[in-house]
Amino acid sequence: MYKRSRSGKKKRHYILPKAGTSPGLVYIDENALKPQITLHQLNEKSYQTKQLDNLKDIVKIIADKSFTFWIEIKGFGSPDLFDTLGRDLNINKLVLEDITRTYQRPKMEEYDGYVFAVSRMLLLDEDKNLENDQLSFILTDNALFTLKDTYGDCLEPVRQRLEAGKGNIRSAGSSYIMYALMDIIVDTYFEILGTWSEDLDLIEDRLLDKPDKSIMYDTQLIKRNLINIRRVSWPERDKLNDMLRSDSPLITDQTKLYVRDAYDHCIQIIDIVESLKEISASNIDMYLSIISNRMNEIMKVLTIISSIFIPLTFIAGVYGMNFSDKDPITGKLMPANMPELYQPHGYLYTMIVMAIIAVLQVIYFWRKGWFK
Amino acid sequence: MYKRSRSGKKKRHYILPKAGTSPGLVYIDENALKPQITLHQLNEKSYQTKQLDNLKDIVKIIADKSFTFWIEIKGFGSPDLFDTLGRDLNINKLVLEDITRTYQRPKMEEYDGYVFAVSRMLLLDEDKNLENDQLSFILTDNALFTLKDTYGDCLEPVRQRLEAGKGNIRSAGSSYIMYALMDIIVDTYFEILGTWSEDLDLIEDRLLDKPDKSIMYDTQLIKRNLINIRRVSWPERDKLNDMLRSDSPLITDQTKLYVRDAYDHCIQIIDIVESLKEISASNIDMYLSIISNRMNEIMKVLTIISSIFIPLTFIAGVYGMNFSDKDPITGKLMPANMPELYQPHGYLYTMIVMAIIAVLQVIYFWRKGWFK
Amino acid sequence: MYKRSRSGKKKRHYILPKAGTSPGLVYIDENALKPQITLHQLNEKSYQTKQLDNLKDIVKIIADKSFTFWIEIKGFGSPDLFDTLGRDLNINKLVLEDITRTYQRPKMEEYDGYVFAVSRMLLLDEDKNLENDQLSFILTDNALFTLKDTYGDCLEPVRQRLEAGKGNIRSAGSSYIMYALMDIIVDTYFEILGTWSEDLDLIEDRLLDKPDKSIMYDTQLIKRNLINIRRVSWPERDKLNDMLRSDSPLITDQTKLYVRDAYDHCIQIIDIVESLKEISASNIDMYLSIISNRMNEIMKVLTIISSIFIPLTFIAGVYGMNFSDKDPITGKLMPANMPELYQPHGYLYTMIVMAIIAVLQVIYFWRKGWFK
Amino acid sequence: MYKRSRSGKKKRHYILPKAGTSPGLVYIDENALKPQITLHQLNEKSYQTKQLDNLKDIVKIIADKSFTFWIEIKGFGSPDLFDTLGRDLNINKLVLEDITRTYQRPKMEEYDGYVFAVSRMLLLDEDKNLENDQLSFILTDNALFTLKDTYGDCLEPVRQRLEAGKGNIRSAGSSYIMYALMDIIVDTYFEILGTWSEDLDLIEDRLLDKPDKSIMYDTQLIKRNLINIRRVSWPERDKLNDMLRSDSPLITDQTKLYVRDAYDHCIQIIDIVESLKEISASNIDMYLSIISNRMNEIMKVLTIISSIFIPLTFIAGVYGMNFSDKDPITGKLMPANMPELYQPHGYLYTMIVMAIIAVLQVIYFWRKGWFK
Amino acid sequence: MYKRSRSGKKKRHYILPKAGTSPGLVYIDENALKPQITLHQLNEKSYQTKQLDNLKDIVKIIADKSFTFWIEIKGFGSPDLFDTLGRDLNINKLVLEDITRTYQRPKMEEYDGYVFAVSRMLLLDEDKNLENDQLSFILTDNALFTLKDTYGDCLEPVRQRLEAGKGNIRSAGSSYIMYALMDIIVDTYFEILGTWSEDLDLIEDRLLDKPDKSIMYDTQLIKRNLINIRRVSWPERDKLNDMLRSDSPLITDQTKLYVRDAYDHCIQIIDIVESLKEISASNIDMYLSIISNRMNEIMKVLTIISSIFIPLTFIAGVYGMNFSDKDPITGKLMPANMPELYQPHGYLYTMIVMAIIAVLQVIYFWRKGWFK
Repeated sequence: MYKRSRSGKKKRHYILPKAGTSPGLVYIDENALKPQITLHQLNEKSYQTKQLDNLKDIVKIIADKSFTFWIEIKGFGSPDLFDTLGRDLNINKLVLEDITRTYQRPKMEEYDGYVFAVSRMLLLDEDKNLENDQLSFILTDNALFTLKDTYGDCLEPVRQRLEAGKGNIRSAGSSYIMYALMDIIVDTYFEILGTWSEDLDLIEDRLLDKPDKSIMYDTQLIKRNLINIRRVSWPERDKLNDMLRSDSPLITDQTKLYVRDAYDHCIQIIDIVESLKEISASNIDMYLSIISNRMNEIMKVLTIISSIFIPLTFIAGVYGMNFSDKDPITGKLMPANMPELYQPHGYLYTMIVMAIIAVLQVIYFWRKGWFK
Repeated sequence: MYKRSRSGKKKRHYILPKAGTSPGLVYIDENALKPQITLHQLNEKSYQTKQLDNLKDIVKIIADKSFTFWIEIKGFGSPDLFDTLGRDLNINKLVLEDITRTYQRPKMEEYDGYVFAVSRMLLLDEDKNLENDQLSFILTDNALFTLKDTYGDCLEPVRQRLEAGKGNIRSAGSSYIMYALMDIIVDTYFEILGTWSEDLDLIEDRLLDKPDKSIMYDTQLIKRNLINIRRVSWPERDKLNDMLRSDSPLITDQTKLYVRDAYDHCIQIIDIVESLKEISASNIDMYLSIISNRMNEIMKVLTIISSIFIPLTFIAGVYGMNFSDKDPITGKLMPANMPELYQPHGYLYTMIVMAIIAVLQVIYFWRKGWFK
Repeated sequence: MYKRSRSGKKKRHYILPKAGTSPGLVYIDENALKPQITLHQLNEKSYQTKQLDNLKDIVKIIADKSFTFWIEIKGFGSPDLFDTLGRDLNINKLVLEDITRTYQRPKMEEYDGYVFAVSRMLLLDEDKNLENDQLSFILTDNALFTLKDTYGDCLEPVRQRLEAGKGNIRSAGSSYIMYALMDIIVDTYFEILGTWSEDLDLIEDRLLDKPDKSIMYDTQLIKRNLINIRRVSWPERDKLNDMLRSDSPLITDQTKLYVRDAYDHCIQIIDIVESLKEISASNIDMYLSIISNRMNEIMKVLTIISSIFIPLTFIAGVYGMNFSDKDPITGKLMPANMPELYQPHGYLYTMIVMAIIAVLQVIYFWRKGWFK
Repeated sequence: MYKRSRSGKKKRHYILPKAGTSPGLVYIDENALKPQITLHQLNEKSYQTKQLDNLKDIVKIIADKSFTFWIEIKGFGSPDLFDTLGRDLNINKLVLEDITRTYQRPKMEEYDGYVFAVSRMLLLDEDKNLENDQLSFILTDNALFTLKDTYGDCLEPVRQRLEAGKGNIRSAGSSYIMYALMDIIVDTYFEILGTWSEDLDLIEDRLLDKPDKSIMYDTQLIKRNLINIRRVSWPERDKLNDMLRSDSPLITDQTKLYVRDAYDHCIQIIDIVESLKEISASNIDMYLSIISNRMNEIMKVLTIISSIFIPLTFIAGVYGMNFSDKDPITGKLMPANMPELYQPHGYLYTMIVMAIIAVLQVIYFWRKGWFK
Repeated sequence: MYKRSRSGKKKRHYILPKAGTSPGLVYIDENALKPQITLHQLNEKSYQTKQLDNLKDIVKIIADKSFTFWIEIKGFGSPDLFDTLGRDLNINKLVLEDITRTYQRPKMEEYDGYVFAVSRMLLLDEDKNLENDQLSFILTDNALFTLKDTYGDCLEPVRQRLEAGKGNIRSAGSSYIMYALMDIIVDTYFEILGTWSEDLDLIEDRLLDKPDKSIMYDTQLIKRNLINIRRVSWPERDKLNDMLRSDSPLITDQTKLYVRDAYDHCIQIIDIVESLKEISASNIDMYLSIISNRMNEIMKVLTIISSIFIPLTFIAGVYGMNFSDKDPITGKLMPANMPELYQPHGYLYTMIVMAIIAVLQVIYFWRKGWFK
C-alpha cells in the first residue's frame, strides 16, 4: 500500500548548513514563500484577527498590554521580515538563523526578554509520507510569534478554540497559547502513530493470509518513519521538561501545569513508538520464518516426487536396455542376458515391485511428517 | 493454542486524545456504562457497604472523620459524576480528564488536599488476550475514591479482607486501602506471568517434540504481551517509588512500609518479564535452527536418492540406445556399435557395475555422516 | 549431555504470591519440612553446637553477650517457629513473610535492632540442573539466625572453619559469620560458572568436530542458566554494596572490609556471566553458519551429479528413440530418421561426446571451487 | 561504486604509541612534512597575513595585545618547532606529545595561561574514503596556534571571512576564531553525512531494481564509515560541552554563545549518524530477505519442472521396457507382458493420461500460489 | 591462520577461589615458580640493580629515604615471601590473598601507609593466543613492589629508561615508576589491537577473494579475544580514574598529570575495541550473505540444467516407448500408435522442437537475470 510513495521518498534529505558561512546569517532560499502574517488580538472579552502586510508597526501594536497577541508568520520570502525582528524586537542573530534553517531539533532557549522554542510539526501527506516541518516560537510577555516556512499546518483547532472562547485560552496569556500549539502538535503524533499501528495490524493480517515480498518493504518503511518520529519525540520531551523547570517569568505556573500534561503525552508517544518498533521487528521475524518454512515446503514437494520416481525410472530404464539373448550375427545364445524380460508375468511383477517401492517411500515420508 | 485470539487481537488500539480539544475536558464516550457507586464505610470496629445513586451527599458523608471511606465508582456514563467531583471535592480539571481518558500510564501526582494515582489493571480473558484497564485513585485524608470505566475487576479479595476484618486493613486508614488495591493489582501480574511461563514451557515441549509453524506465531504473541506488561511495569515501579519518597501527609509511614513490599514485587515482575522475553527469543532461535536443520535433512534425502539413481539411470539409458551393429538396408556390419549388448553375461556385468557404483556412493554419504 | 535434565527442567516455575492475601502473612506449605534447629555457640576460646527442638528459650540463650550465636534453622514446617520469632524477637511481619515466600531477590533491610538479608544459594544437582534456594539472615548484635526451607546446603566449609577455629571467624562477631556464609554462597557461583565454562568448551569442540542438533539445545540451556545466575548476581551485588554503605552498628567495620572482597567477587561473577553469554551467542552463530555451509555442500553434491548426468541421460534417451528409417507397412524409406544409429563407430563417437561434456562440466565446477 | 576504494581501504590503521618511550616525547616521523607557518594578524580595522620561516620571534610578535593572531602551522618536520613552543610559550611536554601523535580524540584541556584542544578534521577523498586528520589548537589570550601534520584542510572559508571582515570574526578575539574553525570542521561532517545519505538512497534504489552482491559490500562500507564518524562525534560533543562549562577566561562568554550553536550541530550529527546506521541495517535486512526470496523462486522453478516431468518420464520409461510377449526361443506366449503396447490407441491414451497428470500438477502448484 | 592455536585455546579457564577457605588466605600453588627478586635502587644521580634472595632485610633497605626503590618479585613459590610482606611491611591479609589469586580485575585500593593496585598484563604468544597475567603493585612513599607469578613480562623498556636515566623517571618518585609500568602495560594493548586490526583486514580480503569456512572461526576467535580485552580495559579505566581522584599523598600531583594521559589511552583502547567488534560483526554478516549468495548460485546451476534437460529427456523417453503399430500375434494394425515414428523427417522435427524448447528456457532464465 506504500507503493506510490517510492518516488516521494526521494525527498528525504538533510538541509545542510553551508559550511563556513558566518554564524547568525539568516538563510532565505530563492524559492521561499511570500510571508502571510496574521495578527490574533485577544483578551477575555474580545477576539479579532487581522492580516498584516509586514511587521513594521508590530512593536507599537503589542505595546498594548491589555491584550494578548499571537502573530502567525508563514513563509519567509522577505528579507525585511527578519531585519525587523532583529532590530525592533531585539532578537538574537543566532535565533533568527535557527528559525530560517528549518532542520532544528525541538528545543527551548531563554533569552533576555523572550523565550525561543522550536517544535517539529509532523503531517502525513496523501501518500502516507511523513512531512516534517519546523514551527518556531518567540514568546514575549504578552505576545507570541510563530514562524513557519510553509503555509499548511495542523493548528486549525486552536484557532477555532480562540474563536469560540471556551476554556481559559483567551485569558491565560501568551505562554498558554504557546502550550496549546505545542500540545496540538504532539497530539498529531498520536494520530500518525494510530495510522501506522493500523497499518502494522493490516500487515500482520497479510502475513497470516498471504505473505508476499511487499511486506518486508512496507514494514521497513514504517520502521523508518518510526525512527524519524523517535528522533523528534526525544528532544520534544526534553524541551517540555526544560519548560517545566524553567525559571523564566514568561512561562506562568498555570501554563506549567498544562505542560506537565503535554509532557506525559510525549512520554506515551515515546512508549508507543518503542512498542511499534518491536512489533515491526517481530513482523519481520515472522516474515523471515515464513519464507524459510515455504522453502521447506517447496523442497519437500521436490524431494518427495523426485525420490519416488527417480528409482522407478531407473528400473524402467534397466528393462529398456537392449541386451540381447543371442548374438544377432552368430545366433549364439547369451546366458543371463535379461531373462526377466521373457518371464511370464515379468511385467506385472515389475510393476508390483515398483508399486511397493513407491508405497514404502510414501510411508517413510509420512512418518517423517512431510505430508503435514 | 492462541488461535482463537486472532480476531480478538484486532481490539488493540490506542485511544487517541482528540487533537485540539481543550485540555481538562472530561471525555465521556456515548457507550459509557452507567455508574455503579459502592460506599464502604469502616473503622476498627464496624464495616458496612452501601450502594449510592450519585455522589451528591458524598462531602457530607466523608466529613465524619471517625470512619475511613472507600468509594468505588465503576462506569462513567453520567456527566454529573465528574461535575460533582470537580465542584464538591475540588478536583483539578486535568485530573478528571486523566481519569476519563483511560490510556494513562501508572503515575502518582500530589495536589492540594488529595493525591491522584493511576494503576493499570491487567486481566487475561478466556482467549488469553490481555485486557488492560485503568483504575484511578483519589486519596484524601479519610477517603479513597477509585474510578474505573468498566465493571469487572480483580479486587474481590480486598473486599473479602475488609469484610473479614483480619489484619490492620480496617484500622490503617485510607492510604493503606489504596496500597492494598495497588498490591493486588501488581500480584495479578504475577499470575499472568505464571500463565505465560507455563505456555512458554509448553511451546518448548512442542519445539522438541514436533515443531510446526504455529510455534512462531504463539511465541510472538506472548512476546507482544510481555512488551505490553513491561510498558505497564516500569511506570508502575516509578509510581511506587514516588509514593515511597512522597512527603504527602496523606500517605502514612506505616503504609510506606508496605509500599516497599509492593515495590519489591514490581521489581521481581520486571525481572521475570525480562527473563521470559529472553526465553521467548531463545525459543525463536531454536525454532529457526530447527527449520534450517529440517531443510538440511530434506535436501540430504533428495541428494542421496538423486545422486545414486541418476548415474545408474544414465547407464541404463546408454544400453537402451538403438545403435545397430549392421545397416538395416545394406546389412553392412558396423564396427564398435555396442558390442557389450552381445557379450555373454553383459547384463549381469552391467548390473554388478551399477551395484558397485551405488555401494560406493552409499559409503561416501555414510562417511560424510549424512545417514545420522 | 544435558539430555536427562529435560524432565527436570519442568520444575522451573515462579512461586506466586497468592493474590489478595494480607501482606505479612506467613506462608507455610503443607509439604513444609520439619524444622532442624542447630545452635552454634562460640567465642574466642570455645565452640559448641547443640540441636534444639524449638526456639522457645532462644531469647534467654542469646542474652549471654559473652558468646556469639549462630542459629541455623532448616525447614519451616512448624507454625510456632515464626510465631516465636515474631513475638520473642520482635521481627516484623513483612520480614517473616519474605522468609517464607522463598522467591525473594537478594536484599538487605535494616530494622530496629536487627538486619534482615536474603541470599540465593545456587547448586547444581547431578543432572546439572540449577537449584535456586533462598537463605534468609536475621542479624542481631551477638546472634545470627539463618533460615532455609530445605535441608541441603553448601555451608559445610564454614562449619568446619568454626570447628577448626582458624582465622578470626570465632572472634569477629555475628556479622562476620553472616559475611562468611554470604561469601561461600557467592564462591559457589564461581564453581557453577566453571562447570558451564567447561561445558561451553566441550560444545565448541563438538562444533568443530561433529556438530549436531543437540548443540543448539545444550547451548540454549546454558544460556538460560546464565540468565538465571545473572538475575541473582545483580541484586546480590546491590545487596553487598548496601552492606558496605550501611550505617547499622550491627555490621562492623572489620566485616565491611571483607564484604568489599565479596563485592569484588560478585562483580567478577557478573563479568564472567556476560563473557559466557557472549561465548554462547558466538557458539550459536558458529553453529548456524555451519548448518548453512553444510547445506551448501549437500547442494553442491546434488548439483554436480545432476548437472553432469542429466544432459548425458538426455543424449542416451535420444538414441533410444524408435524413429524408424522405413515405414514398417509400406517399407518406404524415411529420410533423415536417425542415420547416426547406423553410422560406423556411431556408438563410440557418442560415448566420446558424452565424456567431453562430462569433463567440461567437471572443469567448470572445479574452476568455481566446488570441489574444495 | 566503492570498488576502487578497496586498495585505499588498506590505509586504515591505528598509529600506535611506541610502547615504553618516555611520556612527553615529541614524536616526529622521518617523512614529516616541512612546516608551513602562516601568521594572520588582525584587529577590527586591519588584517594581514605573512609567511614565517620559523617561530623564533613569535613571542615578541604576539606580545602586541592590540592585535589578535592566528598562527597556522602545517607540517611538523622540524624539531625546532616544538622546542620553541615548549621553551618560549611554556607549553607542557604532554601537550606537545599529543599534538605530534595524531590519533587523539577530540578534547579540551586547560593549562596555566593557555587552553589545548583537539578537533578531528574529516574529509572524503575522490574515492570516497574517509580521511581523518587531527587539528590541534593552542589558545592564549590574544593568539591562536593551530597545528596539523598535513597541508590540505577545509578551513578556506574562515580565511575568506577573515579577508572579507564581515560579521564579528575580526573583533571577537582569538577564542572566536577557534570556535569558527571548530564550527567549520563540524559542518564538514554534515556534508559527508549528506553524501552517504544519498549513497544509501541509491543503494536502496538498487535494492528495489536489481539487487546484487555489491549492495552488501557498499552498505557495510558506509556502515564502517559511520562507525568512524560516530567515534569522532561523541568526544567532539563532550569537548564542546567542556568548552561551554569552562571557567577559563580565555574562552569569552560571547564565544560560548556560539559554541552552544556548534554543540547543537554536533548533537544533530550524532542523531543523523544513528539514523543512517539504522537505515543501513534495514537495507541489509532487506537485502537478505531478497536473497531468501530469490532462492525460493529458483527452487519453485526447479520443483515445478521436475515435479511435472519426472513422473511423465517414468511413464515413458515404463513403456520403453522390452518385456516380450513371447519367448524369443521357444516362441511361447507370455501372459500379461505389457498388453498396453498392443492396445489400439494405446499411445494416444498414454499421452492423454500424461497430459492429465501434468495439468493436475499445474493446478496444484497454481493453488499453492507458486506461479505468482 | 589461527589453526594451531586450537589446542592452546583449551587453557582458557577461570581460577576459582576455593569455596569456603578463610578469606585472607595466601594461596600458593604446588607448581609456583621460585621467586626472582630484583632490587632497583635509584635517585637522580645513581641507579643500580641487585638480585635478592629473600625479602628479609627489605625494611632496612627501603628505610633510606634518599633513594627510590623498585622491588620486582617474580614467582611466588616461597611461603616466607608473603609472611615477610605481611609481618614486616604490615600488608593486609586480603591484599596478600588478592596478589596470590591472580584473577583480580584491575583496581586500586588505598590502605594505611600504602596503596595496592592491580594491572592485567596482556601478551600474545607465538600462536596469537592471549596471555593474561596479573601484575600487582604495592606502593609506599619511596618504594614500589611489583609482584607477578610468572617470569616473562613486557616491562623491559622501563628498565632501559631507568638505566638510561632520560626524562624524569629517576627523580619523580615511586608513584611515577608505578605509572610508567601501568602505562607500558596499557600501551601493549595497543600493539595487540594493532595485530588484530591487521588480521581483520586480512580476513576481509579473504572474504572478498575466496571466502571459506575458516573465516567464521577466525573472526569468532578475534571477537572472543576482544571480549577479553574489553573485560580488562573497562576496570583498567576505572582504576586510572580512581588514581586521578585519589587523595592519597603517595600518588603525587605530577604523577597524576601523567596518569591522565594513560587514562586517555585507555579510553582510546575501549574505543578501538568497540570499533573492531563492530567490524568483526560486519565481517560475519558479510560472510553469511556470501554463503547465501553462493547457495543461490549453486541452485541456479542446478535449476537451469535440470529445467532444460528434464523436459527434453521426457520427449526422448516418449519416442523410446515401444507402442506397436500392429499386433505381433494377430498382425492387426493399431490406429494412432506412434505414427510420428514413421514420419519422414520425424527425427529431425523432434530435434528441432527440442532445440526450440531449450532456447526458450535459456531466454527465460536470461531474462530473469540468472546468468549474471
